Amino acid sequence: MQGCTKTIMAQRTQCDSGSHGNRRNSMNISIIGLGLLGGSFALGLKAKGAAVSIIGVDSNTAHAAEALKRKLVDKIMPLEHAIAEADVVVLATPVNAILQLLPTVLDLLPPKAALMDFGSTKGQLCAVVETHPRRGQFVAMHPIAGTEYSGPEAAFATLLEGQTMIICEREKSDQAALARAEKLCHTLGMHLRYMPAAEHDLHFAYVSHLSHISSFALGLTVLDKEKNEKNIFDMAGSGFSSTVRLAKSSPQMWGPIFSQNRENVSEALAGYIAQLQQFKDAIDAQDEEQAKALMEKANDIRRILG
Amino acid sequence: MQGCTKTIMAQRTQCDSGSHGNRRNSMNISIIGLGLLGGSFALGLKAKGAAVSIIGVDSNTAHAAEALKRKLVDKIMPLEHAIAEADVVVLATPVNAILQLLPTVLDLLPPKAALMDFGSTKGQLCAVVETHPRRGQFVAMHPIAGTEYSGPEAAFATLLEGQTMIICEREKSDQAALARAEKLCHTLGMHLRYMPAAEHDLHFAYVSHLSHISSFALGLTVLDKEKNEKNIFDMAGSGFSSTVRLAKSSPQMWGPIFSQNRENVSEALAGYIAQLQQFKDAIDAQDEEQAKALMEKANDIRRILG
Repeated sequence: MQGCTKTIMAQRTQCDSGSHGNRRNSMNISIIGLGLLGGSFALGLKAKGAAVSIIGVDSNTAHAAEALKRKLVDKIMPLEHAIAEADVVVLATPVNAILQLLPTVLDLLPPKAALMDFGSTKGQLCAVVETHPRRGQFVAMHPIAGTEYSGPEAAFATLLEGQTMIICEREKSDQAALARAEKLCHTLGMHLRYMPAAEHDLHFAYVSHLSHISSFALGLTVLDKEKNEKNIFDMAGSGFSSTVRLAKSSPQMWGPIFSQNRENVSEALAGYIAQLQQFKDAIDAQDEEQAKALMEKANDIRRILG
Repeated sequence: MQGCTKTIMAQRTQCDSGSHGNRRNSMNISIIGLGLLGGSFALGLKAKGAAVSIIGVDSNTAHAAEALKRKLVDKIMPLEHAIAEADVVVLATPVNAILQLLPTVLDLLPPKAALMDFGSTKGQLCAVVETHPRRGQFVAMHPIAGTEYSGPEAAFATLLEGQTMIICEREKSDQAALARAEKLCHTLGMHLRYMPAAEHDLHFAYVSHLSHISSFALGLTVLDKEKNEKNIFDMAGSGFSSTVRLAKSSPQMWGPIFSQNRENVSEALAGYIAQLQQFKDAIDAQDEEQAKALMEKANDIRRILG
């Protein structure tokens, strides 16, 4: 860590007296997309006392104003200016916007700056800059943290603390960019994990994307049946709240995730529907032993989740 | 409440000097099935300082011993003795055992005693004692509380506090039995709701039974895919934990619930599978607008759950 810090400080000095031409004591971090993740990243760094100056960019002017009001960011700038001023750029928009922005931001990125993204998919995002001459300045990341809420008002300083940050295609990032990204994660108290992008997308289709669809579909099924029965929801237990919680999630965020991870998500959904059909068949056939056998197998999740 | 308390006190006096022939200052509550619900009911009453003496019955001798050790109950008795001594009998076993026990317990119940059940289904349970000459002594109940854990070690005093107790077929219970059951619920700080048994079973197929199957099936799907990948679960976010939590639930408890509520559960599952198929079709067709439209509709759950 000491070596890492020295490297970063050396880079900073070069950077301060170099491309930006003015001496600064803090690292400029430009966050594009001021929602739950981008906002929480900024708040977390400030809460840890990191010497950072946060520049915010958001195409939604109401979100930009709200982020400034809530002090998630120190100032708001247009995209090009924010990139020109940055030591680190963070793409924290929905993944469709990340896909569009990645090549453009790399084109505009100052030579010593690093670019990170926080997208929940990694395959298509890595592919779009695969052959970009500045690929090395990019670090493909996925913070495993979130809630069912979105927007700047959902951000809080401890969202990322103690959570996992997955880094994909580490070998394609320059040492300097990687070290800077890892240092910021360590400052936030995050654990780092590394994996290939394709493996990431397959696993997360199962342990995250499928959960969201299971919850959206549960919400739809129950709303469809109980449309005139607001009362019944007051009686629903904590089990229902727990399984349906993710149905509150943002369609603008999740639509593009399912699109980009289409093949894996479709395979996971097919498997899930087949398991549900097995339950239905057992119940319809009044085969309680078969239903119990399925549940006993599912109970193995105890061993794994504790 | 004052009137209700007086009635119960009057009954107690009759009861003490009547059928049992010995004067007691506390109400004898015999709980059959010393698991999460039965145990938490006992602990809750004791924590509220209720003058109750708890007699425990469990066909599982290890559970009976554990319940005694944890002071969920004051003593363990064989079923017939526990019923003979009772002012109130509570059936808190899985619903298949409740179905078998209900007529027998009513046959043996002292004339002034009340019988309550805590089953998650109500239709078949009410039907089996529909024409029993002592039907009036029975109060059909469903406490809307629980966790994914079971057994006496899962019980805790505050499980039922502030939660809802549903009472079905109120009109078929005698005033005295009903008043006694309601009084115990009020002592625990529970809210009372009343509904027909058929309505209860339909609603709970959607807001509870379906949630459990969605979670069991999610656990199976992910375990099936990730069988050699314990690591990936360390990386799963809180969303996955939330949706898969109920997959830890007891097959011995849930098997009989799905069997007794077979038609409603099957209909709910068919609806759920159809919703999932809609998502899959939209994703396969690369129709992101349709996927988003489904999610936006599901977001209505926000309005209802807050």
